[in-house]
Amino acid sequence: MATSPYQQLEEEFRRLHAFHGALALLRWDAAVMMPRGSAEVRGDQIAALEMECHALLTTPKLSRLIERAEANVQGLEEWQIANLREMRRQRDYAIATPNTVISRLAKAIARSEMHWLEARRSGRFTDVAPHLAEVVSLMRDRAALLGQHLGLEPYDALIDEYTPGVKTAEIDTLFKAMGHRLPALVRDARELQATTSVLPFSGRFPASKQRALCVDVMKALGFPFEHGRLDESAHPFTEGLTGDIRITTQFDPQDPFRGLLAAMHETGHALYDLGLPAQWRKQPVGGNRGMALEESQSLILEKMVGHSRPFLAYLKPLLEKHYGVSGPEWEVDNLYRYLTRVNHGVLSADADELTYPAHIMMRYELEKELLSGELEVARLPEAWNAAAESRLGIAPSNDVEGCLQDMHWYVGQFGYFPAYALGGLIAAQLWERLRTDLEGLDEQIGRGDFSGLAGWLRTHVYEVGARMTVQDLVQDATDRPLSSAPMLRYLEAKYLEGIT
Amino acid sequence: MATSPYQQLEEEFRRLHAFHGALALLRWDAAVMMPRGSAEVRGDQIAALEMECHALLTTPKLSRLIERAEANVQGLEEWQIANLREMRRQRDYAIATPNTVISRLAKAIARSEMHWLEARRSGRFTDVAPHLAEVVSLMRDRAALLGQHLGLEPYDALIDEYTPGVKTAEIDTLFKAMGHRLPALVRDARELQATTSVLPFSGRFPASKQRALCVDVMKALGFPFEHGRLDESAHPFTEGLTGDIRITTQFDPQDPFRGLLAAMHETGHALYDLGLPAQWRKQPVGGNRGMALEESQSLILEKMVGHSRPFLAYLKPLLEKHYGVSGPEWEVDNLYRYLTRVNHGVLSADADELTYPAHIMMRYELEKELLSGELEVARLPEAWNAAAESRLGIAPSNDVEGCLQDMHWYVGQFGYFPAYALGGLIAAQLWERLRTDLEGLDEQIGRGDFSGLAGWLRTHVYEVGARMTVQDLVQDATDRPLSSAPMLRYLEAKYLEGIT
Repeated sequence: MATSPYQQLEEEFRRLHAFHGALALLRWDAAVMMPRGSAEVRGDQIAALEMECHALLTTPKLSRLIERAEANVQGLEEWQIANLREMRRQRDYAIATPNTVISRLAKAIARSEMHWLEARRSGRFTDVAPHLAEVVSLMRDRAALLGQHLGLEPYDALIDEYTPGVKTAEIDTLFKAMGHRLPALVRDARELQATTSVLPFSGRFPASKQRALCVDVMKALGFPFEHGRLDESAHPFTEGLTGDIRITTQFDPQDPFRGLLAAMHETGHALYDLGLPAQWRKQPVGGNRGMALEESQSLILEKMVGHSRPFLAYLKPLLEKHYGVSGPEWEVDNLYRYLTRVNHGVLSADADELTYPAHIMMRYELEKELLSGELEVARLPEAWNAAAESRLGIAPSNDVEGCLQDMHWYVGQFGYFPAYALGGLIAAQLWERLRTDLEGLDEQIGRGDFSGLAGWLRTHVYEVGARMTVQDLVQDATDRPLSSAPMLRYLEAKYLEGIT
Repeated sequence: MATSPYQQLEEEFRRLHAFHGALALLRWDAAVMMPRGSAEVRGDQIAALEMECHALLTTPKLSRLIERAEANVQGLEEWQIANLREMRRQRDYAIATPNTVISRLAKAIARSEMHWLEARRSGRFTDVAPHLAEVVSLMRDRAALLGQHLGLEPYDALIDEYTPGVKTAEIDTLFKAMGHRLPALVRDARELQATTSVLPFSGRFPASKQRALCVDVMKALGFPFEHGRLDESAHPFTEGLTGDIRITTQFDPQDPFRGLLAAMHETGHALYDLGLPAQWRKQPVGGNRGMALEESQSLILEKMVGHSRPFLAYLKPLLEKHYGVSGPEWEVDNLYRYLTRVNHGVLSADADELTYPAHIMMRYELEKELLSGELEVARLPEAWNAAAESRLGIAPSNDVEGCLQDMHWYVGQFGYFPAYALGGLIAAQLWERLRTDLEGLDEQIGRGDFSGLAGWLRTHVYEVGARMTVQDLVQDATDRPLSSAPMLRYLEAKYLEGIT
């Protein structure tokens, strides 16, 4: 039976999808189940499979098939054409960086990650500086090569890899509007919160009880345990592909909420991944539309839902059931005040939704300067501290709480940070619209019924897959271009007017 | 840098080794961790990786490299030459069966396995008979193709795949000697045991306590938990490759011993796999030497050690510690009588070491007849029952306890059964020799010191890898060719004279 070039491509990408699924399991197992002494063996397995994926994407045969399919799109349907575009996109990224650069980068990153861990222990940035400099230099080469191949500015090519279709110019505009309004908003919110007090929580909350609570909430949110798992790991994450999604969280016996909220964050990722168009799940167009949209889905569940009064009203009896707690500190108003307290600190991991964007914006500015060469790696600590002073109004007292706090740059993740803040903007814009579309949403959430929310997200986000850019998705879902206005309205209502 | 054909082959087989490791994890996870609804996705991943392994072994490039390396062995060391021989062996098996036969067989096996489960529920062999017939017919084709390619009789080619270097003629001789002596031995042992009584065990033994007991015993045996795991699954198994070994067992709260003994059996596999020559662990010659030798290693720990008085003397305080038990039934003599009771039944899974060989020998005879066509699949039930009557002296009352009891044939495992009985013979011969080599072994085992045993097995078994045939390994280790005499001496001493 003769198969068309396009059909042959689908066959090749089904194989690639299967390899990606195997890789996802190898990574999940390494973080959750693997005996400590087996890291080297696992490294070999992951490297062999990654090489295989890269080889599959870079064979001349695949490029020929893409060209032949592109010359013959008139017989294809809309989804197939979008799929072909995503195939080319994956091919382009694979082929743009020569194997030598990939292999040098992999080794430089391994060294840099090791020395970053070392530097965090010693507190000396100089321990890792030369290794970070090597990563930055190789990333600069990679960005140039990618940009050349894709017709993009170098840094835009890196951003595009994480969040397809988004460019620096657009991010600058969005961030500028945020940066303009946020400082005053933070100040006003802190003044307002200074007039109220929060009752503290005491007691111990064993992991087994936190887990049972998580499972109850995750089931209500729609997490299908017959296609997924909840486990514990050092850093919460979601791994897997459609059909087998595994999330992790971490339970601190002294913190009754952190493990749950992290699980809700990861459930947001998981529901998005599980809800991707079933018919296309083995093809590129059936994948997620990048990290900003991924992040928006986790933020909607963690922040917009998880930090809202209706949700806390639903949660209260569950806290009583699982933790056996009661008393004034466990009343909805106190829970809400506790969870929405503005935390004005130097660590982005501890930041709330009001101060978080400033952390991201300063990383975005710094990584642009690092890549352009404007900022030398050796001068990163002082540049970081100056940016923190100006953006956050507070400077870290040492580099561990400063430029050593995130792993991203040290493992070569440049162009990733903007996705966190963009994810917040997308979340707020989708949230604003879905609240007008869904009558009685607060009441539904208050009684633990998340089906309306899930249905809206399925239609407007999950089932779109990678068929269009994230900007088009937001436009289609909200009838407006992506903007920072909904986020600012949301923050003002929540932190100044005490709404939701 | 120019690399020789042999060096290029090592590189290719390192990749293959990494893929096999990934496959092992995908299978382990499917049996132990995977959400139930994810079987289809997992099936795709396994199939894609298996295809990749098959493709790697069957490329013309690999065959050319093998031929060029074989034409140039003078520069190679002994291990490298053995490695090249094992590379060719793997290539030969991969290339001998055309993809069409492999794919038809895979589908026929999937159907047959499903209908076997069905037939076990309905009790009707006819539900699965046509599907088994299809598998038998395809296995016959495969055996003929393999035999032709490898210069072996068809059935020998199937045996060779599981236990390299062993042929029907040798098995016939070994089994004949066993079959000649065993019936009288079973009769005499049962008569003797009829004069003594065994105190029963009562109480419940929760999985968590059984697990803690297992971990203590496994640690004493030398299982390195930094390179492996113990989990639970429906059927105990060992999965993994050197560097990451995972065993499973199953805990029955009403049976204080079964889970432990299964874990000791699997620990035998694991220690062998972990002890394979470290320098060669990513190459074919660093693999295990087939299923018979594998089985011998698990039987030495489970039967020779686990069902011995010295081991039970070591175990007694551990039973007290973990189960909190005491009383006459927990005394060493009663434990020993309980565990060595001859169980004269129709199910091989419940058989003891005295009656087990007869179960295997009848399967061996039957599968030869099925493959030759002498026995039609439709007539299997009556042939099975007749064989059971003559070999075991007892006929099953239905097919679920008869020819439907094992999964092997229904999933295409022909040529596997002999390995179980051969494993017993090898175990007994190694055991006899190591007991003369290791002075004070019983005292060591009695105090939980297994280092002498482990050292002997490491030198004479583990570190040999796949460098020679199992017959040569046994000859080297014991100065005698493989024979059934040690097994018969061992059984007589244990079951008639009450020694060990």
